[in-house]
Amino acid sequence: MVVRAAVAGASGYAGGEILRLLLGHPEIGIGALTGGSNAGRSLGELQPHLAPLADRVLAPTNAETLAGHDVVFLALPHGESAAVAEALGDGVLVVDCGADFRLRSAVDWERFYGTPHAGTWPYGLPELPGCREALRDTRRIAVPGCYPTAVSLALFPALAAGLAAPEAVVVAASGTSGAGKALKPHLLGSEVMGSMTPYGVGGGHRHTPEIAQNLSAVAGEPVIVSFTPTLAPMPRGILATCTVPARPGTTAESLRETYAKALADEPFVHLLPEGLWPSTGTVLGSNLVHLQVALDEAAGRIVVVSAVDNLTKGTAGGALQSANIALGLPETTGLPGAGLAP
Amino acid sequence: MVVRAAVAGASGYAGGEILRLLLGHPEIGIGALTGGSNAGRSLGELQPHLAPLADRVLAPTNAETLAGHDVVFLALPHGESAAVAEALGDGVLVVDCGADFRLRSAVDWERFYGTPHAGTWPYGLPELPGCREALRDTRRIAVPGCYPTAVSLALFPALAAGLAAPEAVVVAASGTSGAGKALKPHLLGSEVMGSMTPYGVGGGHRHTPEIAQNLSAVAGEPVIVSFTPTLAPMPRGILATCTVPARPGTTAESLRETYAKALADEPFVHLLPEGLWPSTGTVLGSNLVHLQVALDEAAGRIVVVSAVDNLTKGTAGGALQSANIALGLPETTGLPGAGLAP
Amino acid sequence: MVVRAAVAGASGYAGGEILRLLLGHPEIGIGALTGGSNAGRSLGELQPHLAPLADRVLAPTNAETLAGHDVVFLALPHGESAAVAEALGDGVLVVDCGADFRLRSAVDWERFYGTPHAGTWPYGLPELPGCREALRDTRRIAVPGCYPTAVSLALFPALAAGLAAPEAVVVAASGTSGAGKALKPHLLGSEVMGSMTPYGVGGGHRHTPEIAQNLSAVAGEPVIVSFTPTLAPMPRGILATCTVPARPGTTAESLRETYAKALADEPFVHLLPEGLWPSTGTVLGSNLVHLQVALDEAAGRIVVVSAVDNLTKGTAGGALQSANIALGLPETTGLPGAGLAP
Amino acid sequence: MVVRAAVAGASGYAGGEILRLLLGHPEIGIGALTGGSNAGRSLGELQPHLAPLADRVLAPTNAETLAGHDVVFLALPHGESAAVAEALGDGVLVVDCGADFRLRSAVDWERFYGTPHAGTWPYGLPELPGCREALRDTRRIAVPGCYPTAVSLALFPALAAGLAAPEAVVVAASGTSGAGKALKPHLLGSEVMGSMTPYGVGGGHRHTPEIAQNLSAVAGEPVIVSFTPTLAPMPRGILATCTVPARPGTTAESLRETYAKALADEPFVHLLPEGLWPSTGTVLGSNLVHLQVALDEAAGRIVVVSAVDNLTKGTAGGALQSANIALGLPETTGLPGAGLAP
Repeated sequence: MVVRAAVAGASGYAGGEILRLLLGHPEIGIGALTGGSNAGRSLGELQPHLAPLADRVLAPTNAETLAGHDVVFLALPHGESAAVAEALGDGVLVVDCGADFRLRSAVDWERFYGTPHAGTWPYGLPELPGCREALRDTRRIAVPGCYPTAVSLALFPALAAGLAAPEAVVVAASGTSGAGKALKPHLLGSEVMGSMTPYGVGGGHRHTPEIAQNLSAVAGEPVIVSFTPTLAPMPRGILATCTVPARPGTTAESLRETYAKALADEPFVHLLPEGLWPSTGTVLGSNLVHLQVALDEAAGRIVVVSAVDNLTKGTAGGALQSANIALGLPETTGLPGAGLAP
Repeated sequence: MVVRAAVAGASGYAGGEILRLLLGHPEIGIGALTGGSNAGRSLGELQPHLAPLADRVLAPTNAETLAGHDVVFLALPHGESAAVAEALGDGVLVVDCGADFRLRSAVDWERFYGTPHAGTWPYGLPELPGCREALRDTRRIAVPGCYPTAVSLALFPALAAGLAAPEAVVVAASGTSGAGKALKPHLLGSEVMGSMTPYGVGGGHRHTPEIAQNLSAVAGEPVIVSFTPTLAPMPRGILATCTVPARPGTTAESLRETYAKALADEPFVHLLPEGLWPSTGTVLGSNLVHLQVALDEAAGRIVVVSAVDNLTKGTAGGALQSANIALGLPETTGLPGAGLAP
Repeated sequence: MVVRAAVAGASGYAGGEILRLLLGHPEIGIGALTGGSNAGRSLGELQPHLAPLADRVLAPTNAETLAGHDVVFLALPHGESAAVAEALGDGVLVVDCGADFRLRSAVDWERFYGTPHAGTWPYGLPELPGCREALRDTRRIAVPGCYPTAVSLALFPALAAGLAAPEAVVVAASGTSGAGKALKPHLLGSEVMGSMTPYGVGGGHRHTPEIAQNLSAVAGEPVIVSFTPTLAPMPRGILATCTVPARPGTTAESLRETYAKALADEPFVHLLPEGLWPSTGTVLGSNLVHLQVALDEAAGRIVVVSAVDNLTKGTAGGALQSANIALGLPETTGLPGAGLAP
Repeated sequence: MVVRAAVAGASGYAGGEILRLLLGHPEIGIGALTGGSNAGRSLGELQPHLAPLADRVLAPTNAETLAGHDVVFLALPHGESAAVAEALGDGVLVVDCGADFRLRSAVDWERFYGTPHAGTWPYGLPELPGCREALRDTRRIAVPGCYPTAVSLALFPALAAGLAAPEAVVVAASGTSGAGKALKPHLLGSEVMGSMTPYGVGGGHRHTPEIAQNLSAVAGEPVIVSFTPTLAPMPRGILATCTVPARPGTTAESLRETYAKALADEPFVHLLPEGLWPSTGTVLGSNLVHLQVALDEAAGRIVVVSAVDNLTKGTAGGALQSANIALGLPETTGLPGAGLAP
């Protein structure tokens, strides 16, 4: 193994998933692991599922610890990545799983995150038009949010092909790991099991401008996005139901053909055979995105449903896929192409 | 107790929930219980949670068994209610939890159910404009579908007040009991736990025309409905996310005020205080409908989220509420006004 | 309604369940509601499932607030009940859902709880020999722990009849609400869904001496208890698998007959028909205890499995059942005798 | 890749898990896939999580289809393996995930399975004393049952070292996939979510004689086993709580030391650090076995809790681990050493 990676924020769910995938990656070795308040504790205690790393102890997150690696994965709270990245030098591949460098609009950033905009990095969603190319040889990658991954991949073919009007209505269900390990009452098992609830309703979720940015770029015009996320009683997974008004002339056949063509060469994003619908259980722990499309003629809308694992393709797998590209490795290296079911 | 009720289809989930509620109803006694293929078996075996009825044995579903009751609840497969109802005589209150008498349009019925249309009965959703009045003294009630209950109550105030354009996009998550006790592979616990999946996408779900019928009636114009149901990893509950385009002039204040006013006197349908959002866990086992509204100004859409228990308010509780009205009892008699949480 | 009840600790799971049951109790009205750190907040926010009480605001837990009620339910952290009870006067019925007054042995108390022993009150498990009588006219009730309820009711008939040697091995699974609303990482939904884990292994759980106390009393000799609790991915419910060595001469028939006889008149504790086994889903939200027994002849052991809802019969329902007795009301008043299933 | 494997019974849970693991195995290629009633259907429809195999169509299970492979994994209903194995020839490595060749006692076989005994093959639990050696160069492997895997690995060190008397009491919780894809009412999601229930109580479960066989072999004397399995609301995982009477002189230190020593060189079976307890979520999808031990001095019992994934280490992973040994490959090849959490 030539490539050596550090993971900053190794005690969280995103950091843990990066490590799970790195343990199965044949070309990248695991170097320094850091934590914030968990520095000094062992992974055996913090992430007991990572048995081969049980004896590793978290170092504090700082430039000294992270120096000397070929790749540094940042799984830090929003707003903390810029300072760390700056200290690392231009030659290091920095893969930021936080939001800091995803948005191009400083206005949007400040409105949704409330802090000064740190900048914009190449966007780690290779399947979006233009993104794969921008990732080759970059040394900075902004990993997309989990919802934007699921929604952008669901809608870009229809919008890029002009089959749909630029007004998306999206309702997505997410597993609880999307909310991280924060100790909040509504995330207790007693509260979430057997229950669903929405949050960030009415346009308030921070992933809304990121989705709009991605879709507007492929549509070539501003896309208005109504986005409602919901919390579902499962640890992982996003099921995104995405609808857009069908433009005149769109048929079930042209719709299907457009998606088949747009995704034909993608190793992870699959349009399912007719009659089969995505489920989050099917893609669990994998880098897969499962899609299905329908034309609702009575309602005049295209409906696309996508399923991803929010921690794998939605975070850590997407990060690794983009890192593979930047490092010149085959894009699928070390990434599970099959889900864990049932 | 003066009123005596029979339940046809007592071995299914709807029949079981009717019985659970009747056990707590002070004015209605439990008479004959019938089943199809389960006739001859005891409730102790079929519905072990109904401990006080453990020794009751199901009779076959036929006119003789059901005769001599004041109320007959039908929890039968679609298409079987008409024949049973006809045999019961006009003086008996027949409450049909099946779909047979819900739709006014024979064309819609035949398109979605594929059999001849049996007719239309007063619709058992008292909160909808005009419905409560029609239920008084009726001897036939068509209990609404679970999704139509959740969606119609979420959207009728906005549409009735002209705040919204008549184009609804609805995505709803349902617990698995909505699919009944049918032995299908995708309903196995191994398949549904930890997983979400859509079904009936693109307008194919049978509840779509029922929702459109209800909303069109209150809007006074045809309402187009894009409806996507999803199966969620929980036994009970519906969370319906309903969006409609806001008409010019609609403000967050006018929206909230409209809902507050429309629901002010409802005993079961509650607009939550600002900042709180419905969850299916909160209404579990109760006849409650919890609602919250938002105006997404950037997207120009009204978003209403409702939570109901699909078996209680969505089926058996709604049936009992309507039966109370028809029997001249206080509408809330015997109906849980608090959920079972956590 | 003549009887008026206050609930101290109304924002927790036990307090919420007491209130849910009181809302359905025809003879007890709801008076003052108090909280610790949640004083000043409304139940609409803290316990949104208790819709009829949404506007009630929690008062601080103190003697002034609790004075003037006929019954006071204490759902406080262990160790806080004694001071409150003392201030309430002898005429008030005080029902303590905490552990403070359960144990007779001060040594056990101090070993497992680490504070001075407050005393011993009549034990609120009416089905145990001698308990029902002691509850009549008492003004102090110690509500049993949830595990001791499930285990003591499972094993007392065999031990009382001398069918078993006094060495119990118990493994019990509990829903997460048994751990309360404490914000601990291992109680997050992401951690508990899809996962089981033991705790308090090796005799360390505080319910061990309480189980031993109950069983020793009925056996007339010290009963040794090996008790392992496990956390199960469900919000509510205890499934207790209890085994004891069969004494020579015990047969499957004598075992079954002993249980049938011991439980014949109990309104809530039911020996299931042969071939049916208890499940926690069946007793959800009810005051039921479902039991089944088997004689494992090859292993020489009696196996009894019991299912209860830890918050209902295991806490709040048990509290109300005992309070009914103390108040001279029919024992089953206001208590659900059917579970919420599925 | 030199080694080519066929999988008979590729549409079930065990077959699907074998394929998931083979997709990540660098030395074994996937050959013929067969099914019974599912022959002719594609894996894309039957096992949608196995995306790279979506186009593979199941052949019927027969000797012609399975011929010409180096390894044949049998994931067939009990009783069907013998005929298939016989037709395959002695040079083919046959790995049977069914029960047919696990038991040495024909009497036990006939009592628990009701058919003539087919024979006994080397037992695929390498960690048990003597087993690893017997697997080298064998061409027939009987893969253990999932419960016997979890229980035997939990108890063998204590029994082999003479720390415990030969009377085990075991209560184990299993995820629903252990029951397979059979369409039975009690396996519906609506029934299992939020609920726990026992089955096979009183010694009736077929894994009981297999556990006793394993433990008796290591103890050097007959071990009596009281075994109660329970069905838990999770798709995968076994948590086995195993207790045995401690022999005089056993101390917490000697117990811990015995386990540490017995498992020191095992790649997959880990004694956790003191204070940490196994959870099934931690080992999900991995070949790990997590163990923790305690000495309950008051009860005089050793308590060992183990966690495994019933489909991975409990079936398919164990099968592959043993196959690796038989094929002369490193034992851990292609087997996940980290769990999928959360």
